[in-house]
Amino acid sequence: MKYQHVVALLDPLSNHRVITLLQYPPTQGKYIAHKVLLLLRHYSLSDAERAEELAGLANSPLLDYRSRAEEHVEKEISENMKAEGVMLHPLALGDGPEPELMCIFGTGDLGRSLGLRLLQSGYRVVYGSRRPHSCGPLPEGAQVMTHEESARSAKMIFVCVHREHYEFLEKMAPQLERKVLVDLSNNLKKDMYMEANAVYLQRLVPKAAVVKGLNTLSAWALQNGLLAGRQVYLCGNNGEAKRDVAEMATKLGLTVVDKGSLSAAKEVEDFPLQLFPEWRMPLYVAFGLSAFFFLYLVIRDIIYAYVENDEDISYRIMISLANKITPVVSLIMLSLCYLPGAIAGFLQLYRGTKYRRFPNWLDRWMLCRKQLGLLALGFALLHAIYTLIIPARYSDRQRVISSVLNEVKKNTTTPLYFDNTSAWRTDSLYALGILGFFLFVLLGLTSLPSVGGTLSWREFSFVQSTLGYLTLFLSTAHCYIYAWDRFLRKSTYKWYTPPDSMLCLIVPSVTLVLKLILVLPCVNRPLMRIRQGWERNRPKDEMGELKATNM
Amino acid sequence: MKYQHVVALLDPLSNHRVITLLQYPPTQGKYIAHKVLLLLRHYSLSDAERAEELAGLANSPLLDYRSRAEEHVEKEISENMKAEGVMLHPLALGDGPEPELMCIFGTGDLGRSLGLRLLQSGYRVVYGSRRPHSCGPLPEGAQVMTHEESARSAKMIFVCVHREHYEFLEKMAPQLERKVLVDLSNNLKKDMYMEANAVYLQRLVPKAAVVKGLNTLSAWALQNGLLAGRQVYLCGNNGEAKRDVAEMATKLGLTVVDKGSLSAAKEVEDFPLQLFPEWRMPLYVAFGLSAFFFLYLVIRDIIYAYVENDEDISYRIMISLANKITPVVSLIMLSLCYLPGAIAGFLQLYRGTKYRRFPNWLDRWMLCRKQLGLLALGFALLHAIYTLIIPARYSDRQRVISSVLNEVKKNTTTPLYFDNTSAWRTDSLYALGILGFFLFVLLGLTSLPSVGGTLSWREFSFVQSTLGYLTLFLSTAHCYIYAWDRFLRKSTYKWYTPPDSMLCLIVPSVTLVLKLILVLPCVNRPLMRIRQGWERNRPKDEMGELKATNM
Amino acid sequence: MKYQHVVALLDPLSNHRVITLLQYPPTQGKYIAHKVLLLLRHYSLSDAERAEELAGLANSPLLDYRSRAEEHVEKEISENMKAEGVMLHPLALGDGPEPELMCIFGTGDLGRSLGLRLLQSGYRVVYGSRRPHSCGPLPEGAQVMTHEESARSAKMIFVCVHREHYEFLEKMAPQLERKVLVDLSNNLKKDMYMEANAVYLQRLVPKAAVVKGLNTLSAWALQNGLLAGRQVYLCGNNGEAKRDVAEMATKLGLTVVDKGSLSAAKEVEDFPLQLFPEWRMPLYVAFGLSAFFFLYLVIRDIIYAYVENDEDISYRIMISLANKITPVVSLIMLSLCYLPGAIAGFLQLYRGTKYRRFPNWLDRWMLCRKQLGLLALGFALLHAIYTLIIPARYSDRQRVISSVLNEVKKNTTTPLYFDNTSAWRTDSLYALGILGFFLFVLLGLTSLPSVGGTLSWREFSFVQSTLGYLTLFLSTAHCYIYAWDRFLRKSTYKWYTPPDSMLCLIVPSVTLVLKLILVLPCVNRPLMRIRQGWERNRPKDEMGELKATNM
Repeated sequence: MKYQHVVALLDPLSNHRVITLLQYPPTQGKYIAHKVLLLLRHYSLSDAERAEELAGLANSPLLDYRSRAEEHVEKEISENMKAEGVMLHPLALGDGPEPELMCIFGTGDLGRSLGLRLLQSGYRVVYGSRRPHSCGPLPEGAQVMTHEESARSAKMIFVCVHREHYEFLEKMAPQLERKVLVDLSNNLKKDMYMEANAVYLQRLVPKAAVVKGLNTLSAWALQNGLLAGRQVYLCGNNGEAKRDVAEMATKLGLTVVDKGSLSAAKEVEDFPLQLFPEWRMPLYVAFGLSAFFFLYLVIRDIIYAYVENDEDISYRIMISLANKITPVVSLIMLSLCYLPGAIAGFLQLYRGTKYRRFPNWLDRWMLCRKQLGLLALGFALLHAIYTLIIPARYSDRQRVISSVLNEVKKNTTTPLYFDNTSAWRTDSLYALGILGFFLFVLLGLTSLPSVGGTLSWREFSFVQSTLGYLTLFLSTAHCYIYAWDRFLRKSTYKWYTPPDSMLCLIVPSVTLVLKLILVLPCVNRPLMRIRQGWERNRPKDEMGELKATNM
Repeated sequence: MKYQHVVALLDPLSNHRVITLLQYPPTQGKYIAHKVLLLLRHYSLSDAERAEELAGLANSPLLDYRSRAEEHVEKEISENMKAEGVMLHPLALGDGPEPELMCIFGTGDLGRSLGLRLLQSGYRVVYGSRRPHSCGPLPEGAQVMTHEESARSAKMIFVCVHREHYEFLEKMAPQLERKVLVDLSNNLKKDMYMEANAVYLQRLVPKAAVVKGLNTLSAWALQNGLLAGRQVYLCGNNGEAKRDVAEMATKLGLTVVDKGSLSAAKEVEDFPLQLFPEWRMPLYVAFGLSAFFFLYLVIRDIIYAYVENDEDISYRIMISLANKITPVVSLIMLSLCYLPGAIAGFLQLYRGTKYRRFPNWLDRWMLCRKQLGLLALGFALLHAIYTLIIPARYSDRQRVISSVLNEVKKNTTTPLYFDNTSAWRTDSLYALGILGFFLFVLLGLTSLPSVGGTLSWREFSFVQSTLGYLTLFLSTAHCYIYAWDRFLRKSTYKWYTPPDSMLCLIVPSVTLVLKLILVLPCVNRPLMRIRQGWERNRPKDEMGELKATNM
Repeated sequence: MKYQHVVALLDPLSNHRVITLLQYPPTQGKYIAHKVLLLLRHYSLSDAERAEELAGLANSPLLDYRSRAEEHVEKEISENMKAEGVMLHPLALGDGPEPELMCIFGTGDLGRSLGLRLLQSGYRVVYGSRRPHSCGPLPEGAQVMTHEESARSAKMIFVCVHREHYEFLEKMAPQLERKVLVDLSNNLKKDMYMEANAVYLQRLVPKAAVVKGLNTLSAWALQNGLLAGRQVYLCGNNGEAKRDVAEMATKLGLTVVDKGSLSAAKEVEDFPLQLFPEWRMPLYVAFGLSAFFFLYLVIRDIIYAYVENDEDISYRIMISLANKITPVVSLIMLSLCYLPGAIAGFLQLYRGTKYRRFPNWLDRWMLCRKQLGLLALGFALLHAIYTLIIPARYSDRQRVISSVLNEVKKNTTTPLYFDNTSAWRTDSLYALGILGFFLFVLLGLTSLPSVGGTLSWREFSFVQSTLGYLTLFLSTAHCYIYAWDRFLRKSTYKWYTPPDSMLCLIVPSVTLVLKLILVLPCVNRPLMRIRQGWERNRPKDEMGELKATNM
């Protein structure tokens, strides 16, 4: 990359001249740079002027680091390339600097897709292969050489080879000295090897600068150019090497996250193997709650009806039961989203400081709130669809028909009795549910990375806290209206068990009450002070000076 | 950053040599660079070759800027570090250049989270604290010093301290000379201070390069690594300083937007405090329309029924009324999305040029079309759910039952009369509504930043204009079918007021008619010419030459 | 950009000195750089120290490339600027390096919006216009000059002029020598010209470095700052020029994708003109299937009823028919998503290698799987809404009423018969449909760029493969339950045609059976080996050595 800067400033003519000078230095080597410099200095004069200048050129004792460094690299390349017939150089005399050469070890799927992408991004690509003459189809424009030759020609080498075959790299350690080795390998399982692949590679070739990274990209994504904005991780002990790889990755359209030294290689290698690690806990909670309420309702509804009334209503499992489980689990999980925040507030109040770490369980709980909320939204969506499908169900239709038949049997003269309270109640039930669900969908939308990222901090906290609590309040109210006065009826307590709608109200009610206490001015004021850095148990003078200073 | 380039090219051995040379220059200082250069020139030769070269080295009068500049920085660092026991230098002899050192003033939440993130991105971090020995837990790997010491050791200093405590920075102005001070502070309210925090800081320390920015990041986002792709704003008077901060931010995975000079600091500081500024106007419109139609419908439906028929149908407020308000507001707001574009077209036609600014109200209107559309989509979604829940409502069931009872009373022998027109009408009503809603959801999806960003200009305009007008057309047709022939019936005009479905058709109809006129070939052709730069009132010769040239 | 680095390191004072030196070089020109260097070397010493150094300064024969190069550019600028009255220079003595100057040809919408954005990003902007004194309103802070003057003053020139007017650029070729010309032009239609605009421009001005790009940005997006993260394409023959443009674009917040040399200009110019190219094939499939099933169902349902039973049920077209077409097309398209993968598996098994390219049709099919899936999701969503609206339809209500009337007529004493099997069947039908749809929505969400981008490779493959097949399985089961035992009834085969629910089961059943075969251990094991690089027809020894090495 770097050596192109000077050369690129030159027009083709002087470019040619410089390269000639660099390749065939005059015996008085120390004068080269002077000439280069003068050439450079005049690169924007007319050709005529330049010719004149060159004619009058006196040998002056000047030298420049930059052009020398570049000279060096150019030379190295040209020397290496001689074996291949100096085929790459003439390009440099064309109308632009020669693009950088990248070397890829391995001609498998990944190697080929990577090469394709590199070529499309303007790099030149050379493959290193054990059998350069029989390695299958490669992207157009790429060269194939032996591993040794290809390694010599490029500064950056992508290792697209399985870890089990790394040994050959040890043998060619001399050629890899001071090269940047990008280790893209992944394992099939976690903890297949004690040592991370990249650490192993660095041990084999200690004088190369190994950079672990890009391993999250699949051959498929590379081939189809699905890279823009994709996040990739890099780690390595050599900062310069990492920077070069990062620059290359940025040119491919990737977003680079530096994970530090090679000791992070294990983590980086595990990344493509992980399966929703942050979703595990919330999923366990969701499955646990669903399973509990499923059993509870099967016993209370289906088995009870069978045992006590000798009625087979097992068909209800498919929709009626599911439509009881989903809202219950959704409401509990939504409140579990907001409960840890309230607990943390009380803990801070009790401790009188925010500088003590929360207990581990609370920490982990707080970190999975987003997942808890999204799962709750999923259950809420299912509940919404289950509810809307009710009138289309066979059992519901039969119920309507049989209720009409009952009316017909009773009498057909007086108009049907219309219970205004029932109308109010069911309409309120539905309206609260719809509004709560609507706000919940809004909450879910802001958790989309591309939407949430455009929100300011205050907007995000408004949505997640104010709108979030409003959602919880509406959903809880929706459930209270559903429960209504059933808790007064004896028939509700089948086999002395409370109904699910009562059970599921416990957590949300507690959460809302705790939040209500926290927003009382007399509780909120000290909490705000604590959250701004104030501490109860510190000497007062120190406080003013030290803590309150920091953000 | 910059001074690592050369050093990084060296292998450890020559690295060591260079640094030794730079740190302990021979008395004939002017010869240093020559040696450095020769070392550099040979950095890729074998050790043996290099040793030979070094032995034969003659003192030549050469000097290089780059290595001197780097020498300088290195020296400065090393001098500063001596107080701490030169503990940082040996690292430079390891296998990579030493990562850059960042200084953070303030050990509060923000400071600690920022430090953690910087460490994870490969920087070294030193904290400046008033009481380095009692400042609470800090991220592993970071050092703590006094403010003065820490400032001396790093080039970039993050100020994570509340504005009220900035005075101490004035006292240490000498140490901060030529440093880059990144001001991350936020205020609690807008306009708390006349002067932006960063401007105030620059005034206190005039010789430092203050850069305002990153203040949109919360400690929470920093701690949890939710930075990738996040947009941050920077501003400052010193371009070089800004560039350094931008480079650092890019390394953290952030997307940097340069907001110009420090005069933009106020705007940058207000950013995290703003609460949906671009949503305010559309929300006012939505609330205004909802309130108006709520009152209108309460009077026309509920109160009218109570007064004239002595019927209590107040329960209808919850769903029936909401389901009349939401479609009405949704349709009006959707047409308000497209109306300004049509008005702008007519204005351009009337003026005969596109080079005169639109009136302010039209400009602002056009800028909030996206928000108008998304709110309309929200109302449409509510309308859809309200409609789907209808058959599950108590009142609806009672109506079905009572209509059956009426049928039963009337006669039970002839088959039920099936009105084909009614079937056609309601099915068309629903079908148009569903298709319109479906297209509306598609429109909404393309307004997601991550989806819209992948569309080409022509695709975006196709979706937003063609699909948008189709949505408006379907929705308006849906509403016309709903209104049907009611405008002919006298019973529709309760208390001489027109029904809501007639009121809400005015704006969409006008919008569609205007658009229809604009796409007539005889109107569209001159408009297209105007939009390509043609002007009616310009002398013709000038036109051809000047205006039509530009895009 | 580059020439600011050194200057930026200087404090205002020495900045002034350097510039003075550069502008008014002493007669002994060769000593300039030495002084510059010494000034640079001491830029961080105190003023007093520096004065001392300067006093003792001896003329030493030292020279530096960097400062010379910068001197050169500065000089060129200053010389050019003299004509304009040296009005730009004094800024450089302010508190920061002078921002780079960008030149824009064309004062149309695009030119102005681009200028505005460049100014906001901290650049200086000069417009080149044929009539600098009458070119309408320009962004505040920008200058206007003639094309020639403005071209001389800046290194990068944005050409915001229609292609038809490019000739004037040929005349000013000398002034454009070695400049970077950014061609932002778009055409109105594809293939309007044989030659890409940028190639034509390069031919006109062969000594300039033409870079094609940024043409995907609209004036509107530029004006409203909707650039962050937007992807732009660049191509050009001069790598250095491209890099400069890329740097500038990155500063504007854009994500740059390098498309290679100028030969890609055509592709880049076609980009804003394309209209969902990758959606075309799936849309054809969707329309084709919809049209076929529409005709099929109109004949089988509507016309059959009219001809055989003399019944007019044409109203069913709007919803009933649509609600038969959408699920059928959705299910077929969902299975078309997964069928090519299964075919590819069998092809690889048959061939015994993965190194032979798939036939073209299979390749193209596999590339549009995402679009097929999203269209299927759209149809599924329509199906869901159509189904939910059923109970609210007039025809459905009439059916309920008439079924009640039938019951009433039959008898009103015995309770209504409740068919448990029917209840189970319809509830299972709905439950499977709801669960399948729910999973389908999840699949759709992960195809959002911003969601999918956060998934690891294993997560993505879990979602797309495991969840995808589960969705297909649930949907197919949903359809089987709907078909139920109808295939046994003679009345199903109206006019000897099979019902649509039977037709639509063919493709999904085949896909599921193929997949089932592929996951059988005895089939899966060789397939896995092939996918890891094993080949059946290769000599065994070669295999182990060569192929299995690569990833």
